[in-house]
Amino acid sequence: MDNNVIKAALLGLGTVGTGVYKVFQLQAPDMKNKLNADVRIKKILVRNLEKAAKKVADPSVLTNNWQEIIDDPDISIIIEVMGGLKPAGDYIRQALEKGKYVVTANKDLIAEEGDELIALAEENKTDILFEAAVAGGIPVIGPLKHSLAANYINEIVGIVNGTTNFILTKMTQEHMDFTQALKIATDLGYAEADPTADIEGLDAGRKVAILASLAFNSKVTFADVYTEGITQLTPKDIESADEFGYVIKLIGLARWTAEGVEARVHPMLIPKSHPLSTVSDSYNALFIHGDAVGDVMFYGRGAGEMPTASAIMGDVFDIARAIACGGRKTARRATFRKLPVKGIQDSVNRYFLRLSVENKPGAMATIASVLGNNSVSIQQVVQKEAHSDQAEIVVVTDLVRESHLNDALMTFRGMSVIKSAPAMIRVYGKLSEN
Amino acid sequence: MDNNVIKAALLGLGTVGTGVYKVFQLQAPDMKNKLNADVRIKKILVRNLEKAAKKVADPSVLTNNWQEIIDDPDISIIIEVMGGLKPAGDYIRQALEKGKYVVTANKDLIAEEGDELIALAEENKTDILFEAAVAGGIPVIGPLKHSLAANYINEIVGIVNGTTNFILTKMTQEHMDFTQALKIATDLGYAEADPTADIEGLDAGRKVAILASLAFNSKVTFADVYTEGITQLTPKDIESADEFGYVIKLIGLARWTAEGVEARVHPMLIPKSHPLSTVSDSYNALFIHGDAVGDVMFYGRGAGEMPTASAIMGDVFDIARAIACGGRKTARRATFRKLPVKGIQDSVNRYFLRLSVENKPGAMATIASVLGNNSVSIQQVVQKEAHSDQAEIVVVTDLVRESHLNDALMTFRGMSVIKSAPAMIRVYGKLSEN
Repeated sequence: MDNNVIKAALLGLGTVGTGVYKVFQLQAPDMKNKLNADVRIKKILVRNLEKAAKKVADPSVLTNNWQEIIDDPDISIIIEVMGGLKPAGDYIRQALEKGKYVVTANKDLIAEEGDELIALAEENKTDILFEAAVAGGIPVIGPLKHSLAANYINEIVGIVNGTTNFILTKMTQEHMDFTQALKIATDLGYAEADPTADIEGLDAGRKVAILASLAFNSKVTFADVYTEGITQLTPKDIESADEFGYVIKLIGLARWTAEGVEARVHPMLIPKSHPLSTVSDSYNALFIHGDAVGDVMFYGRGAGEMPTASAIMGDVFDIARAIACGGRKTARRATFRKLPVKGIQDSVNRYFLRLSVENKPGAMATIASVLGNNSVSIQQVVQKEAHSDQAEIVVVTDLVRESHLNDALMTFRGMSVIKSAPAMIRVYGKLSEN
Repeated sequence: MDNNVIKAALLGLGTVGTGVYKVFQLQAPDMKNKLNADVRIKKILVRNLEKAAKKVADPSVLTNNWQEIIDDPDISIIIEVMGGLKPAGDYIRQALEKGKYVVTANKDLIAEEGDELIALAEENKTDILFEAAVAGGIPVIGPLKHSLAANYINEIVGIVNGTTNFILTKMTQEHMDFTQALKIATDLGYAEADPTADIEGLDAGRKVAILASLAFNSKVTFADVYTEGITQLTPKDIESADEFGYVIKLIGLARWTAEGVEARVHPMLIPKSHPLSTVSDSYNALFIHGDAVGDVMFYGRGAGEMPTASAIMGDVFDIARAIACGGRKTARRATFRKLPVKGIQDSVNRYFLRLSVENKPGAMATIASVLGNNSVSIQQVVQKEAHSDQAEIVVVTDLVRESHLNDALMTFRGMSVIKSAPAMIRVYGKLSEN
């Protein structure tokens, strides 16, 4: 056992792959002590051998031929950091079928097919680990599967996309508009050339699907998650929220209610007293509520070369430890509940509404009666004169079913007293506390 | 395997034991699905059978005879929640020697003998888990052993004692003095009848020893930890810190420096911009810095019946999962580094000093020259008139070795210009950033 060397293959040598390669070097002197084994990279799958050669000490580990890896019985751990559904998904399935262990950072794949891949791993008495797929370096999958496993988790609420949090921080602290803030995020490398997945909430939505499945032991896929991005938010929204004591964040929310699971991503007003309101720049944070543990929060870097590599290598070490002590680490499909997933129309929220109305007597009464007729009760309302002929009404509602709110918004649409489409943003609050 | 029932014994049925008992009931319907096994409490060791009988559904599980438990080959997990070194330590050693698994919340014992107990578990091919021994329900031992395992951790800084954090929160937000705040903590049940272990920093010191050992892979025991409590802090200190942009917290700090490990507990000034400054009431929080992951923070309930039970049961579930899939979970002694532990005199800090001086020309110059002569350079200094004949000088120093600061304080002691013993509180800052 003392000379145990475990061989791994790395699929991909982009930003995250390079980070993983670096952590392998950094940890090399400690591995034997920590794991009772050494883990070495035997092969790295890349597209361009020449380009990749500059990034590694020994280019002979590089290959552009997947068969060399999958057919090598000496390789027991596959570390997949290519991203995307194809061919990564095929490679992972083949690896699991051969009983190889898989560690992946691929949130797209896990959000779509995680449940099936875990089942496949279980069948083949192997495991697939994906700590890096959610919130980068922050330990959250591990704690959900282990330290918090004896809880009924009923809510996970968090900031799980660093790009949009950076943009919103700029909009909030430096009063930029969305386009300006996005440009800075792009220039600094926080946003990709095509930022759609981040700014439309798709990336966050995938993480919510993964978290909800694990936390509620019920299958939730990306298709089940309602997503709404931050492109419509204006400096005016942010300023107005600030006046009412809130900060606007792009929130990922997974909630287990009596009527089913809520899984959604959209901007939310967070009370300034809530710790999530202070999570700035590209940081991520997750609040988890369990019946025994109460509230716990995890905070840190949700992306980046080294934080993501930290999470991946934590998983690799777990597998290596199991191999080194002569055992196996076996996946267990744990989506034994079959909870329905609610549509956003059936979710219950408080809402922040900003309406431009004709500046004449009775405007407020009209608004209030439309809301009342649709079972939307008002918690707070403020009217301000905007121009001589126009006033602004800001309403914060009590908890109300979204379909009822939409009925009210629909009614507003046909009314001449309303000068433009109202801005609507949901307000965060625990259901039980409101 | 489908009818697998794993038997556990619970040692102790106080607050935490009762919580564990409750979580067993709460999780009973899910265990088979989560673990592929049921875990049941076969015996509970108590002192007073009659008193305990009121707390359980079936009093036949109760016993006051340890031999009944240790001699029962059917019992594979011992959950120790009695606390204290004796007899808990003896029971745990006997259990490990028989190859039973141990889960414990006993920070006193782990801080003294953790390294030896882990070695004993390893020898006997079993494991001892103690997530609950540090920061109650907050997952931190698990993440250090798993998700963060591929990091060189160089600093852990945190608020790891809820009682003192509650007291300091009262002193800060409601301007109480220590005695008043302690009384409220006692009345609310946050402080024990004898609060010494909390208010003198001993409880926090034990947690620092456990964290440092794990994080640095080097043995650190409670005896190595410098501890200083909060009994000397005055409302004036808190107010004065506030004016300079700081909040005072009782901080547990474990730091890996080139000269050795620092392991200490004492009050510190935390900049208001640091997330730890906002951790209030009885909440705990831990900041961990690793070379790959950067900063991560964990926040939640550091004590209490149910949060502590959550942590214990997470460990029990981990063991049950390993047993159910036919494997074993084996401890690994990982204190392979032999780092020296530095004395507080050799630590390097910034310091906050508050001095009452004679209100006459030259007082400031005298103070400044004593500091300068002892290699203490000043970052910030403010003089205020207190009475007509007395002034107050507040100094924040640059980074300085504690022995140098003490030389300066010693010199002050003999000087007539200084009217009373200066207040000294250390200021938190990362070494690299200062």
